[in-house]
Amino acid sequence: MDVLKVAARSNPNSVAGAIAGALEQAGVVEVHAIGAGAVNQTIKAIAIARRLIERPGETPIRVIPGFMELTIGGEEKTGIRFIVEKR
Amino acid sequence: MDVLKVAARSNPNSVAGAIAGALEQAGVVEVHAIGAGAVNQTIKAIAIARRLIERPGETPIRVIPGFMELTIGGEEKTGIRFIVEKR
Repeated sequence: MDVLKVAARSNPNSVAGAIAGALEQAGVVEVHAIGAGAVNQTIKAIAIARRLIERPGETPIRVIPGFMELTIGGEEKTGIRFIVEKR
Repeated sequence: MDVLKVAARSNPNSVAGAIAGALEQAGVVEVHAIGAGAVNQTIKAIAIARRLIERPGETPIRVIPGFMELTIGGEEKTGIRFIVEKR
């Protein structure tokens, strides 16, 4: 599965394009975000991706959010892992 | 459908309990959030709600995020509307 890493400064339109492309190819993509700004950009990107690829009457894009623990520079951080599906 | 309004200062554990309760009763709940802090608390609350009510092998809680336009005190704002499902 493709993994996209989103930051607070990521452009939601660019991320939306990447999500839409991955969903059209594979039907599912994983997105990682650490911090409120990154989580917000991810959600905006998914809402934009819906406008890009959902056709009327189709199943909408669905998201399964969960926590992930990771170590960055020796520091433990908790991030959010989104499984994004279009099936 | 129940509508929960989440703010940046909302307690994710309390919101998780409200989401879990609504999902067990109705299978679906709508959540509104305005701003990065509120969106982040909503996503954390959904991740916590998964731990509260998902049993192994069950379909996970899924989220459909979209934009919503609203007017607050004469000002136009864009928020996020989450449809949260457990079916």
